[in-house]
Amino acid sequence: MSETLLRNPIRPTVDFERDGVQHGYLRLPYSRDDSAWGAVMIPVTVVKNGSGPTALFTGGNHGDEYEGPLALSKLASSLDPKAVAGRVIIVPFMNAPAVWAGTRTSPIDQGNLNRSFPGRPDGTVTQKIADYFQRSLLPMADLVLDIHSGGKTLDFLPFAACHVLPDKAQQARCEAGMRAFCAPYCMRMLEQDAQGLYDTAAEALGKVFVTTELGGGGSISARTLAIAERGVRNLLVHFELLDGEIESAESVMLDMPDGDCYVCSESDGLLELCKDLGEPVQAGELLARVHDARGTGVGPVDYHARRSGLLAARHFPGRVQIGDTLAVIAEVVR
Amino acid sequence: MSETLLRNPIRPTVDFERDGVQHGYLRLPYSRDDSAWGAVMIPVTVVKNGSGPTALFTGGNHGDEYEGPLALSKLASSLDPKAVAGRVIIVPFMNAPAVWAGTRTSPIDQGNLNRSFPGRPDGTVTQKIADYFQRSLLPMADLVLDIHSGGKTLDFLPFAACHVLPDKAQQARCEAGMRAFCAPYCMRMLEQDAQGLYDTAAEALGKVFVTTELGGGGSISARTLAIAERGVRNLLVHFELLDGEIESAESVMLDMPDGDCYVCSESDGLLELCKDLGEPVQAGELLARVHDARGTGVGPVDYHARRSGLLAARHFPGRVQIGDTLAVIAEVVR
Amino acid sequence: MSETLLRNPIRPTVDFERDGVQHGYLRLPYSRDDSAWGAVMIPVTVVKNGSGPTALFTGGNHGDEYEGPLALSKLASSLDPKAVAGRVIIVPFMNAPAVWAGTRTSPIDQGNLNRSFPGRPDGTVTQKIADYFQRSLLPMADLVLDIHSGGKTLDFLPFAACHVLPDKAQQARCEAGMRAFCAPYCMRMLEQDAQGLYDTAAEALGKVFVTTELGGGGSISARTLAIAERGVRNLLVHFELLDGEIESAESVMLDMPDGDCYVCSESDGLLELCKDLGEPVQAGELLARVHDARGTGVGPVDYHARRSGLLAARHFPGRVQIGDTLAVIAEVVR
Amino acid sequence: MSETLLRNPIRPTVDFERDGVQHGYLRLPYSRDDSAWGAVMIPVTVVKNGSGPTALFTGGNHGDEYEGPLALSKLASSLDPKAVAGRVIIVPFMNAPAVWAGTRTSPIDQGNLNRSFPGRPDGTVTQKIADYFQRSLLPMADLVLDIHSGGKTLDFLPFAACHVLPDKAQQARCEAGMRAFCAPYCMRMLEQDAQGLYDTAAEALGKVFVTTELGGGGSISARTLAIAERGVRNLLVHFELLDGEIESAESVMLDMPDGDCYVCSESDGLLELCKDLGEPVQAGELLARVHDARGTGVGPVDYHARRSGLLAARHFPGRVQIGDTLAVIAEVVR
Amino acid sequence: MSETLLRNPIRPTVDFERDGVQHGYLRLPYSRDDSAWGAVMIPVTVVKNGSGPTALFTGGNHGDEYEGPLALSKLASSLDPKAVAGRVIIVPFMNAPAVWAGTRTSPIDQGNLNRSFPGRPDGTVTQKIADYFQRSLLPMADLVLDIHSGGKTLDFLPFAACHVLPDKAQQARCEAGMRAFCAPYCMRMLEQDAQGLYDTAAEALGKVFVTTELGGGGSISARTLAIAERGVRNLLVHFELLDGEIESAESVMLDMPDGDCYVCSESDGLLELCKDLGEPVQAGELLARVHDARGTGVGPVDYHARRSGLLAARHFPGRVQIGDTLAVIAEVVR
Amino acid sequence: MSETLLRNPIRPTVDFERDGVQHGYLRLPYSRDDSAWGAVMIPVTVVKNGSGPTALFTGGNHGDEYEGPLALSKLASSLDPKAVAGRVIIVPFMNAPAVWAGTRTSPIDQGNLNRSFPGRPDGTVTQKIADYFQRSLLPMADLVLDIHSGGKTLDFLPFAACHVLPDKAQQARCEAGMRAFCAPYCMRMLEQDAQGLYDTAAEALGKVFVTTELGGGGSISARTLAIAERGVRNLLVHFELLDGEIESAESVMLDMPDGDCYVCSESDGLLELCKDLGEPVQAGELLARVHDARGTGVGPVDYHARRSGLLAARHFPGRVQIGDTLAVIAEVVR
Repeated sequence: MSETLLRNPIRPTVDFERDGVQHGYLRLPYSRDDSAWGAVMIPVTVVKNGSGPTALFTGGNHGDEYEGPLALSKLASSLDPKAVAGRVIIVPFMNAPAVWAGTRTSPIDQGNLNRSFPGRPDGTVTQKIADYFQRSLLPMADLVLDIHSGGKTLDFLPFAACHVLPDKAQQARCEAGMRAFCAPYCMRMLEQDAQGLYDTAAEALGKVFVTTELGGGGSISARTLAIAERGVRNLLVHFELLDGEIESAESVMLDMPDGDCYVCSESDGLLELCKDLGEPVQAGELLARVHDARGTGVGPVDYHARRSGLLAARHFPGRVQIGDTLAVIAEVVR
Repeated sequence: MSETLLRNPIRPTVDFERDGVQHGYLRLPYSRDDSAWGAVMIPVTVVKNGSGPTALFTGGNHGDEYEGPLALSKLASSLDPKAVAGRVIIVPFMNAPAVWAGTRTSPIDQGNLNRSFPGRPDGTVTQKIADYFQRSLLPMADLVLDIHSGGKTLDFLPFAACHVLPDKAQQARCEAGMRAFCAPYCMRMLEQDAQGLYDTAAEALGKVFVTTELGGGGSISARTLAIAERGVRNLLVHFELLDGEIESAESVMLDMPDGDCYVCSESDGLLELCKDLGEPVQAGELLARVHDARGTGVGPVDYHARRSGLLAARHFPGRVQIGDTLAVIAEVVR
Repeated sequence: MSETLLRNPIRPTVDFERDGVQHGYLRLPYSRDDSAWGAVMIPVTVVKNGSGPTALFTGGNHGDEYEGPLALSKLASSLDPKAVAGRVIIVPFMNAPAVWAGTRTSPIDQGNLNRSFPGRPDGTVTQKIADYFQRSLLPMADLVLDIHSGGKTLDFLPFAACHVLPDKAQQARCEAGMRAFCAPYCMRMLEQDAQGLYDTAAEALGKVFVTTELGGGGSISARTLAIAERGVRNLLVHFELLDGEIESAESVMLDMPDGDCYVCSESDGLLELCKDLGEPVQAGELLARVHDARGTGVGPVDYHARRSGLLAARHFPGRVQIGDTLAVIAEVVR
Repeated sequence: MSETLLRNPIRPTVDFERDGVQHGYLRLPYSRDDSAWGAVMIPVTVVKNGSGPTALFTGGNHGDEYEGPLALSKLASSLDPKAVAGRVIIVPFMNAPAVWAGTRTSPIDQGNLNRSFPGRPDGTVTQKIADYFQRSLLPMADLVLDIHSGGKTLDFLPFAACHVLPDKAQQARCEAGMRAFCAPYCMRMLEQDAQGLYDTAAEALGKVFVTTELGGGGSISARTLAIAERGVRNLLVHFELLDGEIESAESVMLDMPDGDCYVCSESDGLLELCKDLGEPVQAGELLARVHDARGTGVGPVDYHARRSGLLAARHFPGRVQIGDTLAVIAEVVR
Repeated sequence: MSETLLRNPIRPTVDFERDGVQHGYLRLPYSRDDSAWGAVMIPVTVVKNGSGPTALFTGGNHGDEYEGPLALSKLASSLDPKAVAGRVIIVPFMNAPAVWAGTRTSPIDQGNLNRSFPGRPDGTVTQKIADYFQRSLLPMADLVLDIHSGGKTLDFLPFAACHVLPDKAQQARCEAGMRAFCAPYCMRMLEQDAQGLYDTAAEALGKVFVTTELGGGGSISARTLAIAERGVRNLLVHFELLDGEIESAESVMLDMPDGDCYVCSESDGLLELCKDLGEPVQAGELLARVHDARGTGVGPVDYHARRSGLLAARHFPGRVQIGDTLAVIAEVVR
Repeated sequence: MSETLLRNPIRPTVDFERDGVQHGYLRLPYSRDDSAWGAVMIPVTVVKNGSGPTALFTGGNHGDEYEGPLALSKLASSLDPKAVAGRVIIVPFMNAPAVWAGTRTSPIDQGNLNRSFPGRPDGTVTQKIADYFQRSLLPMADLVLDIHSGGKTLDFLPFAACHVLPDKAQQARCEAGMRAFCAPYCMRMLEQDAQGLYDTAAEALGKVFVTTELGGGGSISARTLAIAERGVRNLLVHFELLDGEIESAESVMLDMPDGDCYVCSESDGLLELCKDLGEPVQAGELLARVHDARGTGVGPVDYHARRSGLLAARHFPGRVQIGDTLAVIAEVVR
């Protein structure tokens, strides 16, 4: 049977057309050994007032990234519908089973939600979530914000980002959104591998799409949460869903022009990064060493920078496996 | 049969009495389903020159703390025996199976090595390691340094520490060592629960014992590794095992006088810490909130500071479980 | 390559065209780490005498439901081919790996067989089983009986059931079969979500299809086994595969007209059901409470009935997770 | 160091000497890979008024038995301290990690709490809980009630029980308590294997000890919860901690005089019990059959009753393993 | 989107068109919970000299078969590019995650690489590896050798093999290669079930394809490694990629004409094989017994040979499960 | 309570004092999550006739060694009590849970039974089994035979063995038994590490004790089973429990005089053994290489023989971990 005829099994307990605040669930039936008639319940809040544009704000696309879930959970509890001109749909824990487990991917099916689009209505739990966003929520939206951080295994300089798009008018709208977010850094990205991305799904539907990387390590600080909360409110103001002023802050524009920005490990061991996040790096400089923990007196394997720039992202854990991306160097755009 | 008559099965492949540098293993036979005649091989380096005092330096007591393993692995590769006056025994990966797995406790028996002393020669793998330190390595040592960090689930202001001891002369020697380490912070600790600690095992044998907490999150930065390397070298100079000058740095003295320093969670959810490490906190101030990720529109549970001071340690992951220590406030001693 | 050209790898060790009794296997090659040239062996019995109709009787579609496996295993051991007019194909342990594990789904691939139709000849083990029924066994059958119970996590009033079908003549034949089963309750069901069901696969091929829910909890009682054994024999008599009289018993007709019959949990905790199975319920009445086991002195979350009727099904375990169906209320049809 | 000198690490957050109602925790520090400074938090309620006797009521000794946890959680929420003459200590989820997991034993250490007494202050988590009851809570109590059911793998006729004790005056007090509970059945038990039992620990300290088995299967019904709630209140009245009348009900006295009461499986397969709970059984009668699920056409293995009586307990799951106790026959005492 | 338009994400770190020796990796990005930007690194060696034919040599298609990985790893280290006329691409650890784990299938996705062809560029890790061979490496090759052994659960007489193919000229080239390998035995195979095989993928592209089974049990002997090393070198000489003489050895030609060659277990237990590998067997002779380990005094289940021949393969482990292939009898072709 | 006063919970279902053949179980109660009143059932056979000596024959001390279980299971089924003069107690699957799982250690508690003596009546399941042999079965025996092989990870030349004992008369009796077994090789062993051995437990009670290593790899061949069956029968004849002649065979006497016989790996990778079992080795000769499977073009790590002799035992799997014993060289004694 053709896939497009299949109905997604998710049923919302909220009415997306009703004015006011509603807190409810996206209910996804999930039969399993420990609950034959169980369900995955993805929390959702809808704040609506009249007929303005629709913003779709998501966090927890990866379950170990916390700036999105906390900023959006706080927004869902505090947003006054009377102050809103339009509709704000908030899904702070998009891949809810992953958020509950504190893992990047879903503990149910190991699904990486951000690589599962457009999804399948008869697929795995993660694919069903993707399909619901693809076919039900994205079409309702004008503006889409997806808040990411590095998760347990990566750490980033805090930045907002948008993609280089074929439709330059759309790209300009996204870029304006990115700048309105007012993160300490901004990044214009040329996506090399768009397969399965939520970003691409939203952009292909012509939406304004903004994303972020706001820190990492599977933790969250008061500082990065404040960046997220400011950005979320700024975006609503920028797109005239909320009245008020944008709370502006300085932002450095970064670029990662090609694959030489990435340094990849060809050994297992313990990671010594010779630079900390945000520090300048010279091409050719010793950037990282991997030390073997199986013995002493063996020298480390050295990794040198292939470009100049500043250290924009790093492998977070002290333990490194062959194939891991150790460090990413970004150029500062003036 | 009396335990004290049992022989520990660990055999070193190095000769602790030989001058020069030796890199080898503490070999602990370990019969298991995937290797009937297998062994755990704990790397060890001995650097010896003549008849001076013995320093025993350890890292990897917990397997997800990286300042010790890296600083000591680099020391083992670089220490020139001719520069040494005495003996330095270096075990950078003390609970080696935990280091290889990147976990606090041993993946073999879930043993927390730092709570396993005095150990048992016929116990679990972790207990056998403890027994070997208790009965073979600690007795050889004059000075013992055990380098800790927060691991995957805690983050600390970087400090060196020693204990309040009944023998005040011994305490003074430990305290001098702690200060010589020149970490950004120092902590004099009154141990509330000494059960099974390596610290207590060393101190009970009359040794000079210095420990540290140098960061955390299961990661390591260039900055904290530099603190560890400076501290290790300073200690060797301070105890006259190495010639040279102590590389001094300013250190703030902290104190955690009682249980009110600790804030413990009585709920599950996502952690919002209202302060970052090192920031001042007032008694009664809102310190942390735990947000429920099972729904939206439910207010968080609030946790207030019971003391004034500065945030010295925190629960690192964004996800919190009931019973977790959320934050620790320390007083600055002037 | 087109799927329909692929051959299912299952090979039966019985000859479905031979008269007499044969006990054998459906052999499904399954290469895995612990047996490179292994196989899943699904027991099957064929009892055939001459050229009458074919009944296909299955149990163990879910592996933790026992009335089907026991009633059919006993039938397979006792059915006299000389008494049969036609052919009875008995597969008491349809998803055999799940039956051996005592789990709803297959321990090999977590497949829910009853949601895997029409299956795939080159899919997972569970999908291959579905494909074999779809393309080999169902086409042979005139009458299909699939015996279910609630399994470990649901408990039901014992009922036989059939579906509302577009072909009313077919529906009448199914309904006659359902009534002939003579379970204490009967249920005519309008399937809301037919995706992947064995039921729908059989019905779409025009077969007479009868199913049941005969108890639950992952257990089986002398009483529910007797219901199953009586029903199985009655069906054979009704469809003239066996001579004899139908052993009749009174049956109450139930209906679950819409989604308001279902009560779903929005909290985790311990389940207090205020009614037991079969008891009458009034709309608006307190039906269930979920108590939090993380603390004392916190009130439970209450769930009220949205319809009047009787309690026809319940979540069986004392422990409840968010999303679980707590209770189902059915109307009595007079 | 002598065990008796070690201090149990559990700290209560309630003050057992304070009048009024307090809801709090027994906090047991538990350092582990996912929380270095974590704790197990066992909920506790203390209701105290003046200087009468102390009742210690526990549920959740095994984590898959629900009558105790629900009846006691409801008692903790509803008991009015002004109505109490003395002190009631309520621990509804004694082995809290097991209750949270819904398993008989602790998911942390596989500890069966009811076989872990007297415990160890430096042992596993489960042994530390036992030690805390042994050395802190039991000494405070005059009356101890521990509510059990069958859990996921056993089902019982609902009964209250006490032990045959060497001190006949103590036994009489226990027996009076058992009768006051007013369960449908009563059982006087001669313990064959007392090793590690909480029961024995309480009795050895001279306490009045009453226990129960109130159902099973890992579920709970409205009926069995009502029995538990009535029994709990009756006990408080009987021991004059509460004013009021005992709500009496008829009770049948049972006895299990020797090992012939137990029927044990010597085969793997699916269980057919020929009798349901409460039905009479004659010595020599066919009681159970185990059917092989690896094939069809193989006869079952039969098990006959070795005594006459009524079926008082059974293996609950449909799946049986070699060594499982299939059924228990009790004599009715007149 | 059409699959054929998707790009395989694997990137080689070697340049297949460059002369000389290169050791590098096939880098397959693999985002997972413990490394968000991780990769699977499959070692590859290219030895090229001028414009002759291309040989593609693989081992580790299954991860517990060692003759291929060792013979090819040694070849990669020793092959002198100046001696080569053409190009040799060596992938000694084809399913590298399986080789590292020592398991037949991939520990990442349980994928059996040899049943995953033609693969998918957007599939599982194992399917992506298959797709890369299908679309990138196989098209470069003229001659393909895939070295297998029995792995942990099978043991074989050492043989080289080729398939009966529709293109007789291609079959003749393959057969010549098989004979040039000079294993102790040779086998011409009529593939019954070609679904997903690497063999079929190579043959369908018109390549010369030779495969082997060189022993088994998850071990390797000096003898079987010598057979592999000789065969690899002989093949290069035979196809004129290397100068020199074929090191010839006697080879016995075997045939497995039909399904009667296979003996399959219908019981669980311990395996007694009455013949050892290479011994002659008569049709009807007792070949194997399976003994029940659940009890003593129960006779074994007997399995008799259905053909005469010699024992060419066997189930290796002492433990047998229902469905396992116990033994394979081959005919000697004269 | 003193351990020696605790009663072992195992109950035999056979009467060791009764003449004739009995097949039964050692029943060890084992309460667990999936069976609250379950048990481990260890099969046992007793063959008795009158008042001669008692032989205790065991296999399955490690669960992946098959010569003992098969030879003894066959003996239990075939031994005619009328032919016996005395008593033969046969426990073919000593650590039954390990035998059922096919693993060296128990899947229940990871217990290595042969390192668990003297056991504990209140310990783990494995310790309880050891205690039952220590305190119940060994005292009944005059002659004890424990049949071992290499298991999944070791392979041995087939030998019978006895220990060098302080009581030379006892040693002579053991040595006579070892020689009567008529294995292809014999070994007189000086035990370096006797901790927890069944051997030592038996010898300390003054028993005649014979053990074997008859092959390995987790498999069994017709040849090694024949050695075991011949040896078992020879022993019964030698000790006059059976009438008849010893079936003699040539035996080579081996010796492993010191630790230089063992070669241990200091690296991870794939194992190339340069010699096969039974081949002569010269001191200094290249014996083994470990190849790194993480890359190509890296040379292997070489291991040389430290003694001359013949290769008597080897690491069986192709995959090697640091610490594994790679090979054992024995001297031939003339």
